[in-house]
Amino acid sequence: MTERKKTIAPLDPSDVHAVTWRDGRLDLLDQRRLPGDVRRVVCEDADAVIHCIRDMVVRGAPAIGIAAAYGAVLAARLRVASHGRDWLAGYHLDLARLREARPTAVNLAWAVDRMRAAGEQAGDDPVSELLDEARRIHAEDIEMNIAISRHGADLIDTPGSVITHCNAGALATGGLGTALGVIREAWRRGLVTRVWVDETRPWLQGSRLTAWELARDGIPVTVITDSAAAQMMRRDPPTWAIVGADRVAANGDVVNKIGTYSLAVVARHHGVRFMVAAPSSTLDVATASGDGVVIEQRDPGEIWEAAGGAPAGAEADNPAFDVTPAGLVDALVTERGVASPPGRAAIEALLAR
Amino acid sequence: MTERKKTIAPLDPSDVHAVTWRDGRLDLLDQRRLPGDVRRVVCEDADAVIHCIRDMVVRGAPAIGIAAAYGAVLAARLRVASHGRDWLAGYHLDLARLREARPTAVNLAWAVDRMRAAGEQAGDDPVSELLDEARRIHAEDIEMNIAISRHGADLIDTPGSVITHCNAGALATGGLGTALGVIREAWRRGLVTRVWVDETRPWLQGSRLTAWELARDGIPVTVITDSAAAQMMRRDPPTWAIVGADRVAANGDVVNKIGTYSLAVVARHHGVRFMVAAPSSTLDVATASGDGVVIEQRDPGEIWEAAGGAPAGAEADNPAFDVTPAGLVDALVTERGVASPPGRAAIEALLAR
Repeated sequence: MTERKKTIAPLDPSDVHAVTWRDGRLDLLDQRRLPGDVRRVVCEDADAVIHCIRDMVVRGAPAIGIAAAYGAVLAARLRVASHGRDWLAGYHLDLARLREARPTAVNLAWAVDRMRAAGEQAGDDPVSELLDEARRIHAEDIEMNIAISRHGADLIDTPGSVITHCNAGALATGGLGTALGVIREAWRRGLVTRVWVDETRPWLQGSRLTAWELARDGIPVTVITDSAAAQMMRRDPPTWAIVGADRVAANGDVVNKIGTYSLAVVARHHGVRFMVAAPSSTLDVATASGDGVVIEQRDPGEIWEAAGGAPAGAEADNPAFDVTPAGLVDALVTERGVASPPGRAAIEALLAR
Repeated sequence: MTERKKTIAPLDPSDVHAVTWRDGRLDLLDQRRLPGDVRRVVCEDADAVIHCIRDMVVRGAPAIGIAAAYGAVLAARLRVASHGRDWLAGYHLDLARLREARPTAVNLAWAVDRMRAAGEQAGDDPVSELLDEARRIHAEDIEMNIAISRHGADLIDTPGSVITHCNAGALATGGLGTALGVIREAWRRGLVTRVWVDETRPWLQGSRLTAWELARDGIPVTVITDSAAAQMMRRDPPTWAIVGADRVAANGDVVNKIGTYSLAVVARHHGVRFMVAAPSSTLDVATASGDGVVIEQRDPGEIWEAAGGAPAGAEADNPAFDVTPAGLVDALVTERGVASPPGRAAIEALLAR
């Protein structure tokens, strides 16, 4: 049982930046190996960034967007080096590939589109101008995290426990996180007594990443298996369930990590309020409802690995995301304010601010 | 990714007996290592059986009861060898320890109590008489599985997919299983098109045991993470969710593997009917409701192991079972018939048959 007792030491705070631009290269914290093994992956071109996004070296919708923005800078630098003033056509090809690295999160497309527009408007020193734009995207995310955290914490009116799913923290964003930003701010205000964390199969973002992030901050955290959340809510109901989002459709349907919908159903059954915290770049008014979003299907091996292999003849289904209908969401929290409950009109009003 | 592609070969059918009495010893299929590694553990005394029950070499309420019955035979043989005609006092001590090996399943206490009564009534050859009683318990379980399977399959009126949680199959019983017995019989009748199997964290009884059992029978099986069941039900609703039980209280509350309650809540939300299949020895009329049942808390290391260790300061909560209120159960299927819906009067009527 030695393995089972293994305790992971807290890391140096400087290790918590998921995405860092350093010495002209993109430096990513390898989230496949956390928390036991802290390694960084350095990218020098767009292909390396695409690989890191696909293979989840970097994950979390806002962090993927920021990584893609810096990836666009790397792409531009190589295209300028090889094609001089005719760099833009190749740059557009690179952006198209970056945009397709993962299909579900909308922030990726949003960030790539900003880098496309910046490229088209760039002057004599496009690489510097694009780096400025990527840094703006990064800095804006940090600011948005702060605003989201405050708006979300304002909704918590009594001290108690909360529950979260997956990781919408520093590791998923440029700053303190969206859902975990809200939880951190509410903890600071004395409104959070304990954070229940779904382990979040199959990738274990909860037990590997969220538990580690919160424990580092000294916030009381208890990991449970995903299917234990219902029993916990029945016996010791939390005040809120708080999660992030990869995409929010025009009608308020929320696309987020697989298991979010299950958590929303059991939360509603127990009268636990359900909060979705995400930057407004996650709002996709071009998509009418969650049913129109492409749900990424990942390798079934992510499920079988834990079981030691697949029995001959058995299949596995491994959707990375699910759709939570807007009707199960009590509050959608963005940096622009709160839609509560979220619906078409409330979301349009948010975006008009 | 070689590890991920690993496929487990189908086993010889003779390997599927969870509990076998052979050459005067108790032979258990080691379920901690299935399906990749097929090993058997041979027990020669009650302590070995207690260890195997605690450490889940053998699991599943009916199989635990059968193993304990043979364990009582081993205990009696040693007590007779050491104390001759004064064997009974020591035997009672052994039975008390066997009865406490795991706290939640009632079949364990039920089987031990039968072996106690048989011991008290035994004549000149107590070991043979007790072996006869253990074999009766085992044979009755096989018969009960058949009756449960037929009663349960009778409730399925249209062909479609079903979903199950944990393992209530041959590996959990003496025969074909309770929930999996129903599914096998319904498949034979052309009423099951596919079986969705929750992987069942943290012990993965679904992806390790149930997928393997069903795939061996050629039944189409798709494993999903526990939290993906809600999304599956929303998109492609199964006809029934079918699970086993470790204990059913007098009011019909069902104590079963952690995650059963979550599955029942999401099933009700989607209009999917919920069936609990268990022998009548699982009915515990001495316990008024599920809230009176001791829920076994297992080592948090079972959760942390998958994450590679526990972050310093983080906790984990690992209840082995949860309570599904009777109101979420559409049918309780026993070998004596069906209580639909299950409640105090319906359960009393079943037991009076």
